Amino acid sequence: MNIKIEKLVKQFAKLPRVGNRAATRIVIDLLQDKTGRAENLANTLLDVSKSVHPCPNCGVLTDCEICEYCSDPARKNGQLCIVRDLSDVLVLEKSGVFHGCYHVLGGNLSGVSGITPDDLNIANIKDRIQNENISEIIFALPNTVEGKTTQQYIIASIGDTNISFSELASGVPLGGDLDYIDDGTLTLAFGGRKKL
Amino acid sequence: MNIKIEKLVKQFAKLPRVGNRAATRIVIDLLQDKTGRAENLANTLLDVSKSVHPCPNCGVLTDCEICEYCSDPARKNGQLCIVRDLSDVLVLEKSGVFHGCYHVLGGNLSGVSGITPDDLNIANIKDRIQNENISEIIFALPNTVEGKTTQQYIIASIGDTNISFSELASGVPLGGDLDYIDDGTLTLAFGGRKKL
Repeated sequence: MNIKIEKLVKQFAKLPRVGNRAATRIVIDLLQDKTGRAENLANTLLDVSKSVHPCPNCGVLTDCEICEYCSDPARKNGQLCIVRDLSDVLVLEKSGVFHGCYHVLGGNLSGVSGITPDDLNIANIKDRIQNENISEIIFALPNTVEGKTTQQYIIASIGDTNISFSELASGVPLGGDLDYIDDGTLTLAFGGRKKL
Repeated sequence: MNIKIEKLVKQFAKLPRVGNRAATRIVIDLLQDKTGRAENLANTLLDVSKSVHPCPNCGVLTDCEICEYCSDPARKNGQLCIVRDLSDVLVLEKSGVFHGCYHVLGGNLSGVSGITPDDLNIANIKDRIQNENISEIIFALPNTVEGKTTQQYIIASIGDTNISFSELASGVPLGGDLDYIDDGTLTLAFGGRKKL
C-alpha cells in the first residue's frame, strides 16, 4: 500500500472499536469519495477539537464557556451525579433517569495505572457543594475496585457535611439470566435482596 | 450532547463499519486525549486526501505521478488483473498470489444503480494492452451479476485480439462446510468439478 495511505490507516486503526481491516475500509471509502467527505470530516474534527474544552465547573466537554448542564437553571435541584467520563453522562442522559448536574472526574484512582487524586477533577467538588447548594451526591462510577476506591476517597475528602451520599444499586441486570452472571454480582444481589 | 460534538459523531457514524455507539466512543476518546491525536488525525486526513489521486494508468490511489505498481518494472510480466476497487488490490497483494499490474474500474456496471461504462475506468484498457504488451487479462471482479456483466462488456469492447482472458475459479471456499454453502455456489462447484 502507498506509504501515506498506510500512515492514515494506522491512525484510524488506533481508534476504539476500529481494527486494521475496518480502518482500511474507512480510508478507502473516504479517499474514493468525490463529494469531499474526507475534507469535511477532517475540518469538523479540527474545528471541534480546537473549540471544545472541559467545562470549568463540571468537566463535561463543551464549546461554550459553561456547559449545557451547568448553565441550565432547571438542573439546579440539589443533586450532583459523579461519573468517570463524558460517555457516562451521555448514557445517563439517554436513559432520562437523572435531571440534576454532573461532575466528570476524568478517570478513577488507580495504583496500577498511577492515577492519583491530582490527576482527577476532584478538587472543586467541595466548592460546588457550597455554591450550588448540593444536598445529595450520587456516585455513578464503575462497579470496580478503582470506582469504589475513588468513591471512598471523595467521601472522605468532603468530610463532615449533612450531604446524603448514594451509589447505584448492584445486582442482576434487567433480563439477566443467572446462568450468565458472575459470582461477584450474585453475591452483591443476594446481599442487597429486597423484601417483597 | 453538545451540538458541535453531535455533528462530529454523525460524520464518524457514516463511515463504513462504524455505528452510532462506536462513533460516540471514538469522538469522546479523541476529544479527551491530551496528546493531540484529534489534530494529528485531522491533519493526516486532510494531507492524504489532498495529495492522493487515482493513478492515471490503472486507477490505484497514489500520491506519486504513477502508482507503485505501474512504476515497478518487475511487474511488467504481461498479466493485467482487473478489479473493482482499491480494497481488492490490497487483498490480492496481501495474499501474494499475483505479481503483475492492476486495473481498478472504480465500480461495476449496474442498471439498478445507473452505473454506465462512462462512469468506470474502462476506456484506457485497450491502450494499456498495446503499451504494456499485455498477453493475459485476469478478471478478479465480484462473483455477481454486475461483476459478470462488467466482465462481458470489457471482453466485447476489447474485441478481437490474441489476449487470453481468465476469471477467478468459483466454488467451495477452503474449509467450507457444504451445509453453509448456497445453492448457486454449489451449482458452480459441481459444474466446475475437477478430474482426479
